[in-house]
Amino acid sequence: MIKLSILGSTGSVGTQALDVVRAYRQDIELVGLVARRASDKLLNQAREFKPKYVVSYQEPEKDWLESLPKECVYLKGEEGLLAVVEESERVLNAISGIDGLLPTFFVLSKNKILLASNKESVVCLEELIREKSENVVPVDSEHNALFQLLSMTDRKEIKKVYLTASGGPFKDTPIEELSKVKPAQALNHPTWQMGQKITVDSATLMNKGIELLEAKALFGLDPDLIEVVIHPQSLVHGAIKLKDGSFLFQVSPPDMKIPIMNAIFYPERREYHFRDISLFELSPIVFERVDRQKFRALSLCEWVARIGGVYVPVLLGADERAVELFLEERISFDKIVPLVEEVLSSVNIRDPETIEEIIQAVEWGYKKVDEVLGKVL
Amino acid sequence: MIKLSILGSTGSVGTQALDVVRAYRQDIELVGLVARRASDKLLNQAREFKPKYVVSYQEPEKDWLESLPKECVYLKGEEGLLAVVEESERVLNAISGIDGLLPTFFVLSKNKILLASNKESVVCLEELIREKSENVVPVDSEHNALFQLLSMTDRKEIKKVYLTASGGPFKDTPIEELSKVKPAQALNHPTWQMGQKITVDSATLMNKGIELLEAKALFGLDPDLIEVVIHPQSLVHGAIKLKDGSFLFQVSPPDMKIPIMNAIFYPERREYHFRDISLFELSPIVFERVDRQKFRALSLCEWVARIGGVYVPVLLGADERAVELFLEERISFDKIVPLVEEVLSSVNIRDPETIEEIIQAVEWGYKKVDEVLGKVL
Repeated sequence: MIKLSILGSTGSVGTQALDVVRAYRQDIELVGLVARRASDKLLNQAREFKPKYVVSYQEPEKDWLESLPKECVYLKGEEGLLAVVEESERVLNAISGIDGLLPTFFVLSKNKILLASNKESVVCLEELIREKSENVVPVDSEHNALFQLLSMTDRKEIKKVYLTASGGPFKDTPIEELSKVKPAQALNHPTWQMGQKITVDSATLMNKGIELLEAKALFGLDPDLIEVVIHPQSLVHGAIKLKDGSFLFQVSPPDMKIPIMNAIFYPERREYHFRDISLFELSPIVFERVDRQKFRALSLCEWVARIGGVYVPVLLGADERAVELFLEERISFDKIVPLVEEVLSSVNIRDPETIEEIIQAVEWGYKKVDEVLGKVL
Repeated sequence: MIKLSILGSTGSVGTQALDVVRAYRQDIELVGLVARRASDKLLNQAREFKPKYVVSYQEPEKDWLESLPKECVYLKGEEGLLAVVEESERVLNAISGIDGLLPTFFVLSKNKILLASNKESVVCLEELIREKSENVVPVDSEHNALFQLLSMTDRKEIKKVYLTASGGPFKDTPIEELSKVKPAQALNHPTWQMGQKITVDSATLMNKGIELLEAKALFGLDPDLIEVVIHPQSLVHGAIKLKDGSFLFQVSPPDMKIPIMNAIFYPERREYHFRDISLFELSPIVFERVDRQKFRALSLCEWVARIGGVYVPVLLGADERAVELFLEERISFDKIVPLVEEVLSSVNIRDPETIEEIIQAVEWGYKKVDEVLGKVL
């Protein structure tokens, strides 16, 4: 029995993790479910899975609390998070955004196994992630795939590590039309169903750029070794080039349950018994070069990967705010990345040394967007 | 320094192996070159590489012998083969056809490492190959790829092993037109440059069927675990499906130097420095199902893989003769496999127990083709 907790259980990854728990109930003891809001969804999850702890950051309504199954203990916020981490062996951190920072810190500090799905904490806590890398299993399909490929090969024999990107909904949209695209178009991801922020980040390729930072943090890879390539079908989740001219691909349908299962049971592989998967679903497979003029987020993130420090949290904060402004239709799509670039070029704060300072740097980036808005528009 | 010998040095694989030797001269000591004929090509190879031994099965002309560099000792036939094997650490058996049987037997009996490129000896000496499997490295691109993938994964976690087939020149030819195709068309392989017999075998898929027998022998795989799939680009050389729903592919351009290098230096990987290989060359990748009605050789070989014994050498002999008859334009293309089927259905000899008996069974199959010719035409 694996003692598992899920942070962010009502989000996209959290929900799919519970699909896995449902299918492997005899092997998984669900210790805790943690979510931001005491929503109906969290309540329903608690009723179905009856974890020991149910935690929300926002105060629940009285009748919500009363509806909780009596097998579950309700705890609030950080106190609850700590109790959950303490009693778990593995913790899936699928909280979205910078709120995932503290949970990742807690999980690794307590020497628990982190099933890492929160990108922000991975890239901001790179040093801790490297130090505790034995306890980190990535859940993102791309990083989970690379994690597997890297574990099968000798690091000295690797010439290149590829991060595949679907290219998003605007892969074939002419650059001059990007000023006119609407939020609804940006939210129409070709292959994966995800939250709003990450879907817009996929459309700008900022998501892939942040994943490059993540690959660097997770695997200690030189950023020059990592190449982002467009692969519109989202079937090859990771690829590596070996020095002898051969390549290894990790391939599967775009189904998050596969990497989630891999992470929950790692290093064991469990039978995928949701449906039968055929090789013929994994065809055709096409690779294309990134149009770097159109997708400037990539070069920006490559630069941030090399420079590191405060630029990482500032990038996250600035992108968060720029995407919000786009979703509110206050800026056009093609202004998201220039806004982030402008914020990064005006950084005048020092590298963070504590979690508080990291969060302050994220907030600095977030707020700076509105300040530089006039310059970019 | 790896003490290497090349049997069948003037053939397609042998020549490409010498390209590798040329590029890694400081790491490889070439002990012997063995070929059927004392040809100009063998002489030129001897002059360039100056191996300790030069061996031919056919008696050389006097002036050929006199032209041999004085650093080389000439030996004839089996005596020469034995001397070469004795002094080598690794022996690439790239002899074509059933003549490869004895060399494979010698190499493994002397506990040398066999770089296996002769299919016939692998499928006919399955028991010896299994017993000495630690000393066998496959050179065929498909089997070398599977060898690598299988070494990276836990056998218990494998759900399927895929053998990829280009589909040959008649993949999209309607079945009713196969009676009219000419040898020149069958010899026009879409992706690989190979000898005549194997190229025709690729057009009937008999080659892939024999490779299925080979995979069974090399890796001790249950034939039901192996699936042949059409992959017209010849980029994915091996694929396996893991129980958790993910797949691993070994991918490279169709260049035999890659698996040859892998085998010569295994388990070390050496730098491929012939040219730079880009991921974008490995696109698109497409998989298709085999048309089993059109390519009956496959079901035939699956049946032979299950039944084993004398049917394996008889299949080889019968196919050898049927392909000859096709190349001589004495039978049409669509009669090759029915002839082999007819021969297999009339087997009345016992399972071979010695190398001599294996060779007799091959000859029995070869001769039987002409006997049953009237029945099939």
